[in-house]
Amino acid sequence: MSAQIDKSSRTRVRDLGIKNGLFPTGKKNAITDVEGVMVGHVSLIEGDGPLVEGKGPIRTGVTAILPHPGNVFEVKVQAGVYIMNAFGRATGLPQMQQLGTLETPVLLTNTLNVPSVASYLLEYILEANPDMGYSPKGSANVVVGECTDNYLNDIRSRHVKKNHVYQAIKEASREVQEGSVGAGVGTICLGFKGGIGTSSRMLPSDLGGFTVGVIVQTNFEGWLCVNGVPVGHEIFRRTGRIGYARGFPYDLGGSCMCIIATDAPLDSRNLERLAKRAPLGLARCGFFGSNGSGDYFIAFSTANKIRYESRRTYEAELLHNDAMSPLFMATVEAAEEAVLNSIFMATTIIGRDNNKVEALPVDLAIEICREFKAIGPK
Amino acid sequence: MSAQIDKSSRTRVRDLGIKNGLFPTGKKNAITDVEGVMVGHVSLIEGDGPLVEGKGPIRTGVTAILPHPGNVFEVKVQAGVYIMNAFGRATGLPQMQQLGTLETPVLLTNTLNVPSVASYLLEYILEANPDMGYSPKGSANVVVGECTDNYLNDIRSRHVKKNHVYQAIKEASREVQEGSVGAGVGTICLGFKGGIGTSSRMLPSDLGGFTVGVIVQTNFEGWLCVNGVPVGHEIFRRTGRIGYARGFPYDLGGSCMCIIATDAPLDSRNLERLAKRAPLGLARCGFFGSNGSGDYFIAFSTANKIRYESRRTYEAELLHNDAMSPLFMATVEAAEEAVLNSIFMATTIIGRDNNKVEALPVDLAIEICREFKAIGPK
Amino acid sequence: MSAQIDKSSRTRVRDLGIKNGLFPTGKKNAITDVEGVMVGHVSLIEGDGPLVEGKGPIRTGVTAILPHPGNVFEVKVQAGVYIMNAFGRATGLPQMQQLGTLETPVLLTNTLNVPSVASYLLEYILEANPDMGYSPKGSANVVVGECTDNYLNDIRSRHVKKNHVYQAIKEASREVQEGSVGAGVGTICLGFKGGIGTSSRMLPSDLGGFTVGVIVQTNFEGWLCVNGVPVGHEIFRRTGRIGYARGFPYDLGGSCMCIIATDAPLDSRNLERLAKRAPLGLARCGFFGSNGSGDYFIAFSTANKIRYESRRTYEAELLHNDAMSPLFMATVEAAEEAVLNSIFMATTIIGRDNNKVEALPVDLAIEICREFKAIGPK
Amino acid sequence: MSAQIDKSSRTRVRDLGIKNGLFPTGKKNAITDVEGVMVGHVSLIEGDGPLVEGKGPIRTGVTAILPHPGNVFEVKVQAGVYIMNAFGRATGLPQMQQLGTLETPVLLTNTLNVPSVASYLLEYILEANPDMGYSPKGSANVVVGECTDNYLNDIRSRHVKKNHVYQAIKEASREVQEGSVGAGVGTICLGFKGGIGTSSRMLPSDLGGFTVGVIVQTNFEGWLCVNGVPVGHEIFRRTGRIGYARGFPYDLGGSCMCIIATDAPLDSRNLERLAKRAPLGLARCGFFGSNGSGDYFIAFSTANKIRYESRRTYEAELLHNDAMSPLFMATVEAAEEAVLNSIFMATTIIGRDNNKVEALPVDLAIEICREFKAIGPK
Repeated sequence: MSAQIDKSSRTRVRDLGIKNGLFPTGKKNAITDVEGVMVGHVSLIEGDGPLVEGKGPIRTGVTAILPHPGNVFEVKVQAGVYIMNAFGRATGLPQMQQLGTLETPVLLTNTLNVPSVASYLLEYILEANPDMGYSPKGSANVVVGECTDNYLNDIRSRHVKKNHVYQAIKEASREVQEGSVGAGVGTICLGFKGGIGTSSRMLPSDLGGFTVGVIVQTNFEGWLCVNGVPVGHEIFRRTGRIGYARGFPYDLGGSCMCIIATDAPLDSRNLERLAKRAPLGLARCGFFGSNGSGDYFIAFSTANKIRYESRRTYEAELLHNDAMSPLFMATVEAAEEAVLNSIFMATTIIGRDNNKVEALPVDLAIEICREFKAIGPK
Repeated sequence: MSAQIDKSSRTRVRDLGIKNGLFPTGKKNAITDVEGVMVGHVSLIEGDGPLVEGKGPIRTGVTAILPHPGNVFEVKVQAGVYIMNAFGRATGLPQMQQLGTLETPVLLTNTLNVPSVASYLLEYILEANPDMGYSPKGSANVVVGECTDNYLNDIRSRHVKKNHVYQAIKEASREVQEGSVGAGVGTICLGFKGGIGTSSRMLPSDLGGFTVGVIVQTNFEGWLCVNGVPVGHEIFRRTGRIGYARGFPYDLGGSCMCIIATDAPLDSRNLERLAKRAPLGLARCGFFGSNGSGDYFIAFSTANKIRYESRRTYEAELLHNDAMSPLFMATVEAAEEAVLNSIFMATTIIGRDNNKVEALPVDLAIEICREFKAIGPK
Repeated sequence: MSAQIDKSSRTRVRDLGIKNGLFPTGKKNAITDVEGVMVGHVSLIEGDGPLVEGKGPIRTGVTAILPHPGNVFEVKVQAGVYIMNAFGRATGLPQMQQLGTLETPVLLTNTLNVPSVASYLLEYILEANPDMGYSPKGSANVVVGECTDNYLNDIRSRHVKKNHVYQAIKEASREVQEGSVGAGVGTICLGFKGGIGTSSRMLPSDLGGFTVGVIVQTNFEGWLCVNGVPVGHEIFRRTGRIGYARGFPYDLGGSCMCIIATDAPLDSRNLERLAKRAPLGLARCGFFGSNGSGDYFIAFSTANKIRYESRRTYEAELLHNDAMSPLFMATVEAAEEAVLNSIFMATTIIGRDNNKVEALPVDLAIEICREFKAIGPK
Repeated sequence: MSAQIDKSSRTRVRDLGIKNGLFPTGKKNAITDVEGVMVGHVSLIEGDGPLVEGKGPIRTGVTAILPHPGNVFEVKVQAGVYIMNAFGRATGLPQMQQLGTLETPVLLTNTLNVPSVASYLLEYILEANPDMGYSPKGSANVVVGECTDNYLNDIRSRHVKKNHVYQAIKEASREVQEGSVGAGVGTICLGFKGGIGTSSRMLPSDLGGFTVGVIVQTNFEGWLCVNGVPVGHEIFRRTGRIGYARGFPYDLGGSCMCIIATDAPLDSRNLERLAKRAPLGLARCGFFGSNGSGDYFIAFSTANKIRYESRRTYEAELLHNDAMSPLFMATVEAAEEAVLNSIFMATTIIGRDNNKVEALPVDLAIEICREFKAIGPK
């Protein structure tokens, strides 16, 4: 198994010389460049060979994104949601849209795991808030997103359990693993192994100096473009290789979850607008939002947190609409790079029934990018 | 316990002479007047006295609404959603909005039960569709709604289990129990015991002859009006009685789930418009959509079902927009009467910590309605 | 003509002893109880007899609602929009929803006048802002709403001209005329003459002490209820009178415009939520949102105005979600009373082709309300 | 002036060897490949030198898109709308969303012209429907979109008049002029002269054989990419040239109107989904949806037209959701190519105050594309 996830050979796109967009990245080039944000994964990779329901092979996992290290229910963050295409099971979105706040970590997993993972997350929140359930702490709006991993995983058996959910939350840190990890263990993107990717952008100080970070779970259809280069086409043309089980007209799966964090002081209205820009970054990689896609974009701000308090009002310093454009562009850029990282960092996975999803052949991809002058000569 | 739910004394509002609106009801005056629709409840009422988490007292349940008796995933119904106020945990709504179809029964339960009930429902669907999980039957979008029952119930312990969910679905029938049953065992409405209520309307044949049925789970704040009569005010004024744990500014709970069925041939756009009319019926009973309310309105049509098939297109006969108004009025009327039935049929419940929610004193209510000429003399 | 608008006999519902809801009204019981808000009308009533297109009879007008007395483009107010049913021509709503601000007065007129009135309003704004059109003052988002007055008015000729629009804005004051005035000259509501109505509510100081004011232009179908009393039914039953040109299935007209003002410090998200409550008040009067209805609800706050400035951020003190419920209830109450005022204050109008829309027979309505104990004995 | 619009030197991108996407174009590679669709322009180009308000220089126009050659009010087409960013004045969208139909031609013009052009369009419709205004033909929902042309045009004077609107409609044909014409005379896109562009795609017969056509009015910010090649960057880098009056943080203008036509039998829900894909095509050209952008996407289907009739229902053959993905991809492709055509076909315009917006230097652009292997060698 461990052979399947030898990450030593994988490199982030920026380290390969591929630089999309205008703005510089944050220090880690990750969503955790936004102060306080943490990410944790649990990857479940067990068994090989034919599918035996309930036994495996297991190729799935769970990823937790924490907006801050404290009790998120007691100290909520402002949040907005954009739903690009809702052929998906993400839960908890309507309340986030209505009340403008995120009050739990966001968990990502596979499609059929959503209700059970939501149940475990709720249990976690109930334990962390022993007075919940009764007034005034009625209940928490748990947020769980998903992509299917049914090509590789014994998906019907819903292998993510309570201990995995707790572990993903508790081990969350500012170091973000990418590729075939966590909720990305079993996903496929643009004909190659997809998974988890992240990136960030920092605005120059004269545009506010804010940070925008993005994390994606990629599992969508289309043709891979790398900073404009038709890498997908070229690889398929040169190698004779074709895509996997999906494609016209069999695109029943295929989705993208995307979480955007920022320290810019945005309210839920402008966070929703920020979330709406992320698909534009995906589009530059080849995304077109197929019918069978569950594409959910959640944005939150770590500024102006909403605390439980007896006062009727709270004070906030909020960004004017007129100052939003640089944040929009930063979101597009970071979303594009996060998708590329999810593919460049993902390792080949062989799963149930020996289904195999190959990692992007990075050397060939680089060669093509170089030919197309998307990166400089060696 | 059974003493708590002695329903022998309860009567539906129409049988008391209270007739709201213009259109006649269907035969059963229930959502099941729409051909094929079925409803099942499991009511959990166990234990008494102080709350002991995990033990009870238990005052909760689950209600299943089946759009037709067959495999709903294979034969979907067209559906629309209106979200009045999303301080609530209903799950499965975004996909219904996006794809315009309902593909599972709708379950109602309490707030903290949602993820586990969704998980059991998914399990039920997986069992009924052994090929689900893999293409082309990727997964099902389970739909679960809720109101809190935390004033009466050991809510943190989430007592609704798999067998209860299965039973509610399997025992669903065209006979709809109302009041303190199923998901309505522990709810409170307008200062009295609320619960499940239903009603229906039939259009005259020159307006299409269609049926509209409504079922509600009532748990919201406000002042009870019965066909325009301020019954709530009058009872409180005459008896000195006041409401329960909630009210300004402590209205953290309070919600209404509402499912609307029709045999009119509507697409999802017009079903969403139908769903938007139901709150107008609730408003006539005293509803105002408090901040802490999770008010979700789901409408589906049993006409033009969407079947799995190899063809690219389907044929439908659809209602013109211009023919919608009578259906709108019928929805308002049925929603109003369904709320009244939920209260008039609900029995007093004593729950955790001996919290007691008294049923509406029907004799007094009738007396008041008679004084206000809302119903004729004896 | 002046005989047609003898208002001396008309009385506001509250002065007749009809008091809906719990909260006290503001001093004027009008939208202008919100500090700074002003309303102006121009009523056009000319000619009699058969319709001669271009000549009349003219029964139309324009109403202006100013959020404050200054330059609204330079000092915008936060705003939210709820669209109940969009069979209507209101313009300027999408930008208000997107940017969360209202930057011009709101004008009301008839359906076919909307583009020309919008053009005159734009001209007014251009004159008031001589540097508009070029950066940074690109352009203004003018907001115009409407109801049809085609049963009484030579509507095709669009008689509202530039001078009328300017006059309505310039003569706006804190005194609000009601009934068959301004944009309400030619409208019909619930089978009687409708028009302009207004009302307000004040929260007690322990709920924030905020004011909510509502103004409506009423032109919708249904059966008049007055504080729960089925006044419409009773009048039609007792007098043998029936409604006007409209009704099932000929409800092509019929609409309601509703503007809600508050001094509570709400952002656009909570203002949209406020706007969503107003139809619940209309529903209590008989509104059901017919297919042919253009029902638009615009809410704005006079707190936290958004000024042109060089700073990137602004400071705001904002209401917590948890403090919204009393404002919701106040909105429902004021909307209900505003509709009633629009009908009780409206005078009979005879218009084109001698079409006549009779005012509500107030004495009979009062008698009925008294019988139903909705108001006390004389 | 005529020198300013010497189009002889301009070539569509496909004729230059730039082929984006997988699907073949329609015969004309234009929105008019969808049977029945017609487009007309009136371009207003008068005067030179300093701005004299009311006199010019005039650099504006109007474009009409007709969904079919007949009376669109009597034979409506099904329609859907997606609003990407609503800092714009497009009118008529809410009713289209609500009722799912388009009932007039769509007109495009500049920002300040919207109300007057809407007024002229309404006049046109009133003339074509002499019985409109009164039941049952109450009124028409006119649809007008816009981009600003304030850098080049005497925009405050609103030079588009009634005769121009009528002419654009009446002279509409299946031949679509592109570039600096009609509503695109004065617009700027991605640092170069923008304007009108169009493109189309045809699905292979095994995917339904449907046609999708797109027309755009381009006026947005960002960095031009041509089939992935960073042409904008490269030109600015090599020539030292910079953009025009706009850019961070002065992006108050900047917008894109986009109309999508198809003969695929889609209802309004799936047409809205189609419309949501078009921004993904724009994103591939450099679009990121700046704050000051009014980005409206209107999709209509020429199948299943909605006729006035006495019947309550209509029959339709509708596409299953599962067959949507190829249409989504076709929309992305056609939208991308339409934007490129708008820029490649646009000619340099010198406008008010001698402001000059230069056309894309096509030879240099081609050279760059060739270097990046986006097109083959000469």
